[in-house]
Amino acid sequence: MAMKVRDPLLFRQLFDRESYTYTYLLADLRFEDKPAVLIDPVDTQVQRDLKLINELGVHLLYGMNTHVHADHVTGTGLLKRELSTVQSVISKASGAKADIHLEPYEKIYFGNFYLEARPTPGHTAGCLTYVLYDSKPSNGTATATPQEPRMAFTGDALLIRGCGRTDFQQGNAEVLYESVHKHIFTLPDDTLLYPAHDYHGRSVTTVEEEKKWNPRLSKSKEEFLSIMKELKMDYPKLIDFALPRNMRCGVPDEQ
Amino acid sequence: MAMKVRDPLLFRQLFDRESYTYTYLLADLRFEDKPAVLIDPVDTQVQRDLKLINELGVHLLYGMNTHVHADHVTGTGLLKRELSTVQSVISKASGAKADIHLEPYEKIYFGNFYLEARPTPGHTAGCLTYVLYDSKPSNGTATATPQEPRMAFTGDALLIRGCGRTDFQQGNAEVLYESVHKHIFTLPDDTLLYPAHDYHGRSVTTVEEEKKWNPRLSKSKEEFLSIMKELKMDYPKLIDFALPRNMRCGVPDEQ
Repeated sequence: MAMKVRDPLLFRQLFDRESYTYTYLLADLRFEDKPAVLIDPVDTQVQRDLKLINELGVHLLYGMNTHVHADHVTGTGLLKRELSTVQSVISKASGAKADIHLEPYEKIYFGNFYLEARPTPGHTAGCLTYVLYDSKPSNGTATATPQEPRMAFTGDALLIRGCGRTDFQQGNAEVLYESVHKHIFTLPDDTLLYPAHDYHGRSVTTVEEEKKWNPRLSKSKEEFLSIMKELKMDYPKLIDFALPRNMRCGVPDEQ
Repeated sequence: MAMKVRDPLLFRQLFDRESYTYTYLLADLRFEDKPAVLIDPVDTQVQRDLKLINELGVHLLYGMNTHVHADHVTGTGLLKRELSTVQSVISKASGAKADIHLEPYEKIYFGNFYLEARPTPGHTAGCLTYVLYDSKPSNGTATATPQEPRMAFTGDALLIRGCGRTDFQQGNAEVLYESVHKHIFTLPDDTLLYPAHDYHGRSVTTVEEEKKWNPRLSKSKEEFLSIMKELKMDYPKLIDFALPRNMRCGVPDEQ
């Protein structure tokens, strides 16, 4: 049964201080059971997330991953153990095990909202950017204009004034540049962009801001390739532990 | 000159990982110069904040403090040094030096938005909760209904599932209980509440949620007083350094 509310979107940004990871909870408040999704949960924060899910009374449908993370273990495996109706979601191109494998441009519905899975490979081959749309925005509530996406979850493809590294996990700087310019920078200028990480306490950016101020991706492709080639980055601390687990969407063993 | 935009409010939540402090940047995008306020800046993050202010092209009018902080030095002093037109703001009841001393219920305007300074003493005698209103919400953009505040900045009076301590700095648990129940819990249920801190990576709550789930303030006054009396808390690390500076709104010496 649909209910009338001021803003139909319940939206919560959650931070893991250890890995600097953002997790996002979204639900449709127009429905009594508040259908919900959780994007990029972190295994060590799952108890916090479950408590919030319980207190808010939302019905979690999907535990979604933007990609196979190298810096933390996804929480989708633990979530599935605690909430048996939750399905794990990741791109087919990731090669990871999951309940649902998304093809490019497939949609995941929760209530009247849906997330469109735009392929944004380059950091990994299976990276997705989830773009939020409202399929029924004309019920008198304060939503964005129809067809205008309100926000997008960019994973590690695009970070605030930065981007994911491209030197491991099938990384490819040229592919990343094309992905961001084709599938993120073409969104409306005021679309809010929520990344998987920020290391300076910033929480959100916009398409306009990144087109103008991103020190890497606002440049020409040649300059971008040169910048990415020059980056000297450490081997990620948790990669050898996290990758095999995340290839199973965080399910602790082969179940 | 007024411009038409999808959402007239530019809103940024910023986090200081060391002191777990949230800083908030707000601006009115309906005006070309984007008049703005910054709530509870942290001294060590002022360069980050200034860079963002510059990139977003907002015109910062006020550096606002919810109260005299004991756990970090406010950034308003450094902001004033870098941006000569910025005025520091705090409650008159705080006893602190500042350019503007707010009386209860006074309003601070930036563009068509204003913040109402609700007195919420109890953690300190001068704590304010800033409630955001839109004075001209009927220009066809997606704002909240007139008279319905959209969000409030509660400082340390109300934290997510918690509240500020009441055992120093003129703290008084009974006064805090009355403040929250009279001036925060009376806001519409879906008003977003943004605190000065969170220690578990949560970013926002609502009036409805805290009335239901706050483990201290959802209780009777007697139970609340008992809970606060039993708290065994360490002496704040930075208090002897931070308090005298914050009594001058972060201005480094007597200027």
